Amino acid sequence: MTSTRPNGRAADALRPVRITRGYTKHAEGSVLIEFGDTRVLCTASVEERVPPHKKGSGEGWVTAEYGMLPRATHTRSQREAAKGKQTGRTQEIQRLIGRSLRAVFDLAALGERTITLDCDVLQADGGTRTAAITGAFVAAHDAVESLLAAGKLSASPIREHVAAISVGLLDGVALLDLEYVEDSACDTDMNVVMTGAGGFVELQGTAEGAPFTREQMDTLVELARQGIVDLVQAQKRALGL
Amino acid sequence: MTSTRPNGRAADALRPVRITRGYTKHAEGSVLIEFGDTRVLCTASVEERVPPHKKGSGEGWVTAEYGMLPRATHTRSQREAAKGKQTGRTQEIQRLIGRSLRAVFDLAALGERTITLDCDVLQADGGTRTAAITGAFVAAHDAVESLLAAGKLSASPIREHVAAISVGLLDGVALLDLEYVEDSACDTDMNVVMTGAGGFVELQGTAEGAPFTREQMDTLVELARQGIVDLVQAQKRALGL
Amino acid sequence: MTSTRPNGRAADALRPVRITRGYTKHAEGSVLIEFGDTRVLCTASVEERVPPHKKGSGEGWVTAEYGMLPRATHTRSQREAAKGKQTGRTQEIQRLIGRSLRAVFDLAALGERTITLDCDVLQADGGTRTAAITGAFVAAHDAVESLLAAGKLSASPIREHVAAISVGLLDGVALLDLEYVEDSACDTDMNVVMTGAGGFVELQGTAEGAPFTREQMDTLVELARQGIVDLVQAQKRALGL
Amino acid sequence: MTSTRPNGRAADALRPVRITRGYTKHAEGSVLIEFGDTRVLCTASVEERVPPHKKGSGEGWVTAEYGMLPRATHTRSQREAAKGKQTGRTQEIQRLIGRSLRAVFDLAALGERTITLDCDVLQADGGTRTAAITGAFVAAHDAVESLLAAGKLSASPIREHVAAISVGLLDGVALLDLEYVEDSACDTDMNVVMTGAGGFVELQGTAEGAPFTREQMDTLVELARQGIVDLVQAQKRALGL
Amino acid sequence: MTSTRPNGRAADALRPVRITRGYTKHAEGSVLIEFGDTRVLCTASVEERVPPHKKGSGEGWVTAEYGMLPRATHTRSQREAAKGKQTGRTQEIQRLIGRSLRAVFDLAALGERTITLDCDVLQADGGTRTAAITGAFVAAHDAVESLLAAGKLSASPIREHVAAISVGLLDGVALLDLEYVEDSACDTDMNVVMTGAGGFVELQGTAEGAPFTREQMDTLVELARQGIVDLVQAQKRALGL
Amino acid sequence: MTSTRPNGRAADALRPVRITRGYTKHAEGSVLIEFGDTRVLCTASVEERVPPHKKGSGEGWVTAEYGMLPRATHTRSQREAAKGKQTGRTQEIQRLIGRSLRAVFDLAALGERTITLDCDVLQADGGTRTAAITGAFVAAHDAVESLLAAGKLSASPIREHVAAISVGLLDGVALLDLEYVEDSACDTDMNVVMTGAGGFVELQGTAEGAPFTREQMDTLVELARQGIVDLVQAQKRALGL
Repeated sequence: MTSTRPNGRAADALRPVRITRGYTKHAEGSVLIEFGDTRVLCTASVEERVPPHKKGSGEGWVTAEYGMLPRATHTRSQREAAKGKQTGRTQEIQRLIGRSLRAVFDLAALGERTITLDCDVLQADGGTRTAAITGAFVAAHDAVESLLAAGKLSASPIREHVAAISVGLLDGVALLDLEYVEDSACDTDMNVVMTGAGGFVELQGTAEGAPFTREQMDTLVELARQGIVDLVQAQKRALGL
Repeated sequence: MTSTRPNGRAADALRPVRITRGYTKHAEGSVLIEFGDTRVLCTASVEERVPPHKKGSGEGWVTAEYGMLPRATHTRSQREAAKGKQTGRTQEIQRLIGRSLRAVFDLAALGERTITLDCDVLQADGGTRTAAITGAFVAAHDAVESLLAAGKLSASPIREHVAAISVGLLDGVALLDLEYVEDSACDTDMNVVMTGAGGFVELQGTAEGAPFTREQMDTLVELARQGIVDLVQAQKRALGL
Repeated sequence: MTSTRPNGRAADALRPVRITRGYTKHAEGSVLIEFGDTRVLCTASVEERVPPHKKGSGEGWVTAEYGMLPRATHTRSQREAAKGKQTGRTQEIQRLIGRSLRAVFDLAALGERTITLDCDVLQADGGTRTAAITGAFVAAHDAVESLLAAGKLSASPIREHVAAISVGLLDGVALLDLEYVEDSACDTDMNVVMTGAGGFVELQGTAEGAPFTREQMDTLVELARQGIVDLVQAQKRALGL
Repeated sequence: MTSTRPNGRAADALRPVRITRGYTKHAEGSVLIEFGDTRVLCTASVEERVPPHKKGSGEGWVTAEYGMLPRATHTRSQREAAKGKQTGRTQEIQRLIGRSLRAVFDLAALGERTITLDCDVLQADGGTRTAAITGAFVAAHDAVESLLAAGKLSASPIREHVAAISVGLLDGVALLDLEYVEDSACDTDMNVVMTGAGGFVELQGTAEGAPFTREQMDTLVELARQGIVDLVQAQKRALGL
Repeated sequence: MTSTRPNGRAADALRPVRITRGYTKHAEGSVLIEFGDTRVLCTASVEERVPPHKKGSGEGWVTAEYGMLPRATHTRSQREAAKGKQTGRTQEIQRLIGRSLRAVFDLAALGERTITLDCDVLQADGGTRTAAITGAFVAAHDAVESLLAAGKLSASPIREHVAAISVGLLDGVALLDLEYVEDSACDTDMNVVMTGAGGFVELQGTAEGAPFTREQMDTLVELARQGIVDLVQAQKRALGL
Repeated sequence: MTSTRPNGRAADALRPVRITRGYTKHAEGSVLIEFGDTRVLCTASVEERVPPHKKGSGEGWVTAEYGMLPRATHTRSQREAAKGKQTGRTQEIQRLIGRSLRAVFDLAALGERTITLDCDVLQADGGTRTAAITGAFVAAHDAVESLLAAGKLSASPIREHVAAISVGLLDGVALLDLEYVEDSACDTDMNVVMTGAGGFVELQGTAEGAPFTREQMDTLVELARQGIVDLVQAQKRALGL
């Protein structure tokens, strides 16, 4: 079938993925991740304290916050800080990023400290949450390396890789890694988060138009799985593993 | 296998489902839905106006709000109105309910009016969001009936039923309709929203502990599908269809 | 004089009062109180800590919060949690409930713990604050019973009953226990809170239209007193006292 | 009985009342009212618009806002503007002031305009709400005079005077116009709002300690009535009536 | 040149300055300062604790809050407490007052306590921030005197006087101490804060219309310097120094 | 004198300035500006509407918002959107940027549209507000070019360049373009905003430690003037002028 995707991309192809480590200098981990024109800056900050529900537990915490610059999008959106609250969408995404990262962390091995992943979208073109998860893993990895180098940890609390991708159905065709124009047009939209070993961490499928069938679900999940294998490779290359 | 579930419930059994229509008198639709000890009051309110993004579109809108009474839970939680904001969890759930209901509504056929589903948890014992979706459908149905009876609509804008259930893996066993003690203990937790015709509207699976496999996902989805078939029957019985 | 009240109710008659204990299962006290079509769920939650101004005082605290489900009323009102703040009316009512309950509690005998009364209106038809006070007393009583049963208290810190009723002047006639249509129409509206022994705890009279005279005030207060005697009887019956 | 009140004041005596008109220059009415050491600045602002619920009704609106400077009190209280919200107490008081003033206004005769009474406490020593009501009346009167002088009104929409005073029971003795030390110590505290013609507008009695009896209520109400007669005289003197 | 300023004031003349100490009774320092029709109440409150960033430092803290009564201005402005937030202008001004006062305080000599300067504008006619700084100094001085008198301090932590004035260019003419009509009309507006010894603490110049030149800046700064010399004299007279 | 500045920089030297246009793709103007390690993304968004105070005036509006990514700094700062409000510092800076840009815009020539400059700090190392102003000008210029290219404007409403720089006194030495370690250590800190023609738009000097003298002020202002001449050159080079 001839592709009708922008830039002649194949239905099962990722956009070019670029992972730039050390993008800013202060954070323990700082990664610019690009899925095509989507660009997210992911920083990992280490703090030697934990939130109240972890105090005295001997365990650490991994959490995330997400934001979008007002003009990361086609038309300017209101600045959440000026409005005085985060949208439901923002909260949903940052909770997803946090859960995804915690899924591959041994919090006891991390010790009583917190790693905060700040994922800020500089430019949006679809897939910001999946890029954020994929980039946040690399930033978290760098933050852990800095703890190991400083002798604060003797072994890494990271159990395996985690990465995420979106898939969707557009006019009945399953597409990998939706960009903005596809995302707004597609009937079903699914975000999949998997580990390097191929386990599922999160699966969120939504029918925007017609409900989807079990067969369509299977196709989408398989497509996502393949994409995540590639993303984990990209993470490894970026980390020199 | 001998069940170890509370009350000797089978792994693939729903808790007793009760749907009480006309639970309160002011709303166009008012339904108390019970999944065992979980009790959610779902009201449907019709307003003859639409939010800004629908003005002049000729289309209506269906939306939802979710709340939990402070002592619906084992220990008292802070009242969101007193705290001055809704939690991320609340926003996530009410967005899910809204999307699920819209999936079965023909918004053009509804006309420029809004149906708001208020889902308030009187007593929580796991599965409040799935009970809310299942009950909100019945409340919405009653609200549409009142519009038909009043001659404001000549045909129902509801295309089919929608219902939801949770499933999860506990010690490797797939369980249908998790109650609170199971929900807190289980490794994977999935909420599934389907139509009466068996199409998927939403699928949200989360690995709380170990990641889940493709096979486990398939088992859980099938279990949910069966549960939803039963819930749609319960909706029909309640509606006298 | 022939009554012109809804349902032929006499000017000095209460609406049917129903008090259902154990309405929900988690709270230490949980009471559904109904004054005719007004239905308020009152839960009493015990927490083994006190607010800052009571720390180290040896005394406990009794407080209340009030809410109304968005569609408890004829037309839907905005959800306070979504709006991000409680209205002045809500705050006024919850402060009144708190003061009324504290008036019959020996806070020293309660010890350094807090009882929070959550009064949530499921259906409103006038008199929600007076129903809330009357029901909250029963919920508080049950919470105290649970503390006695658990051996955490050896004697009840409750000194006497407390109950409340509204009275008003409509076209010059003094009416007991106003329902919504009467409340909106009446000239003067008074809420009276009294103890079982007949002492006044709160008296709040407001002229909505013409000011009221001393004689009218006397008539209203006497009418309220009689109503409260009946409400205290209803509390006792519900509590099996 | 020998008085034990501060400054040898008699139980039934008001503190010295001073009413200074034209205290600030921009407002249509600006009054500093002093009840002893309690000092409240009451300004009346006229705006040629009404809130949404009065639009197109042909009627005007009278409303009030109340505030206390952070160091109006013995110890500094947090600035409400900095905290980002008004306390329940503030809202209760400003609602009371608004209702009290509206009770003597013919809103239809006012026409579609709003008079806002801002009552800001410069120094607090008990009785700030009653001083505010009494002073706000004078400020509102001046604002109406300015509308009459400007030819925007041909007749005054003010029907009669309104004033307010506190009374209380301290060690069984009924006291008029409580100052701070008395207010904190007394068992029962009552705020009474009356018109110049002697009608009751608001009556709010609260038992802080032991409940009060019907006889005590009568005594307090009569004491308040006498005080209000004097306050209305003071308003008239200040207005040169 | 003939003056065209209101009241025939000379270009380099201050408005009449009045400083009234002990304006209210509760605060450790309480000063009403008037620059012509601008009237600001400045209170200094001493609290025996410091904010978190000073805890255990052995140093104290001096901070300021600023507010304007809603009808201090020509037309009523919205009450910040009701709106739920302070404007950017308010925050800018209170930060400026705080910095200005800290510039003359030896925080180590103050000890671990906080002085809060509340500057509330009762009537505004231009120059409220400069009047606030000038008056806050006197209030702070009185608060320090009370600490010395109480034996809590053995030497004053105040190193020198601080005062502030506005200057501006109106039709090319440099004017001292702008009142409201001048402030709104002028091209350049500068606020200058200086110590008694003639050192600069803050200099904030803004071109409202055409940019200003180096020569104009020099003229304005010199004009301000002379005005501040007079203000410091006024402070000394008020303090009896 | 031998420089003791980081990287051997001369006291009167700017850090390397880099201006990258078209940094992101959606905004009408998008500029990454770097002053050494300080990096600010400035986007200019054009909207065909104006705020209420400009409606029907025939004039446009230019405004700015400022933000800092949580980990732009050495230690992570709290996300303003999560906290629910912008700090006083943020508001002060965004108001400064807005005023500075409006100083070189002919708002009547802009027509009834708004240009919003979003200045978001990706990495902070001192001088973020001056970099923001200097970069925002270039972004605004690009946005105006897009309006000219689209035929929406026939002539540019920009009258001249505007740029900004910080200067300060460190151990008595006047330094140009302070980086973070210098900024925290210096006694006096001044931000200067000037036009391309050398007029002053804003001048904000603050004594952090000892007050500064008139001579020091003169030295700092002259140093800033020279720096701004260089910055305007850099803007011109970037714009190809």
